[in-house]
Amino acid sequence: MAYPQGAVDPLWPWFSAVAGQDQQIEASELQTALTQSGINGNYQPFSLETCRIMIAMLDRDRSGSMGFPEFKELWAALNSWKQTFMRFDADHSGTVEPHELHQAVASFGYNLSPGALTVLVKRYEKGGRIAFDDFVACVVRLRALTSVFQGRDTQRNGFANFQYDDFIRCVMSI
Amino acid sequence: MAYPQGAVDPLWPWFSAVAGQDQQIEASELQTALTQSGINGNYQPFSLETCRIMIAMLDRDRSGSMGFPEFKELWAALNSWKQTFMRFDADHSGTVEPHELHQAVASFGYNLSPGALTVLVKRYEKGGRIAFDDFVACVVRLRALTSVFQGRDTQRNGFANFQYDDFIRCVMSI
Repeated sequence: MAYPQGAVDPLWPWFSAVAGQDQQIEASELQTALTQSGINGNYQPFSLETCRIMIAMLDRDRSGSMGFPEFKELWAALNSWKQTFMRFDADHSGTVEPHELHQAVASFGYNLSPGALTVLVKRYEKGGRIAFDDFVACVVRLRALTSVFQGRDTQRNGFANFQYDDFIRCVMSI
Repeated sequence: MAYPQGAVDPLWPWFSAVAGQDQQIEASELQTALTQSGINGNYQPFSLETCRIMIAMLDRDRSGSMGFPEFKELWAALNSWKQTFMRFDADHSGTVEPHELHQAVASFGYNLSPGALTVLVKRYEKGGRIAFDDFVACVVRLRALTSVFQGRDTQRNGFANFQYDDFIRCVMSI
């Protein structure tokens, strides 16, 4: 990889150290890196599951790992999601309430029915609240699935058509 | 709940003890119950994530919890999946290899392309092998997503049409 030429991206040395010789980050490496980074603050570390989902979101070549451009994109997204999460987690408990998840999802521009919002909460709550790790998993999956859907909504009318194998491939990866 | 009348199902006392007064099992209760049951043998306990997916698979009323009939159905399925897993995990390492996951999926009757099978492995492997917990998560999601797909493949021609909100609701829950 002929990177970097000229100015060094401030994220590069960290990425390079974590990725090692193959210059690709896998889920367990991402988990270590993000925990070290302190982006979680006093929240729980990211689960391996959430790290896999984060990689899958950006894994355009379906390699199961992440290069530097994707890592930068993820880092920017994570920081933005953290801002949103902290805005709703006013008491710094590390969790938000169901209606706050609804508001956060709406603030990202998703227009979901009450039924769909309830599904998100049921899927990601623990004891009636949503932790940062699960919040990220939820937002990442929502973004990736919306992108998959839009790719198949060729007429832009809110309906998408899937062939079975394509459906399984797209949805199981996320 | 007017259960049981007559003979007591051998699973009932256990379910009842775990579920408590509401007679419903949530993900964290399922995790405790399955770990106590020993169905994992010397495998790692099920993750909360896999327990959530198991509940979602059978959660017809989308309550996020599971009653006794669903619990019985899950128990039967889990025992069957464990048999399959153990057949492939010949050295009792607690993991199977990617090609063995492919074979297991085929043995359940799924006909997936090599590309889709690769996605499953990428999604669920750790260090190139698939643990029982992830095997179950994979099989449960595959079963539930196939069922969602079939429900929308109204012409039985291998194509399914989704409206956006419906797509998110079905797929995010699993």
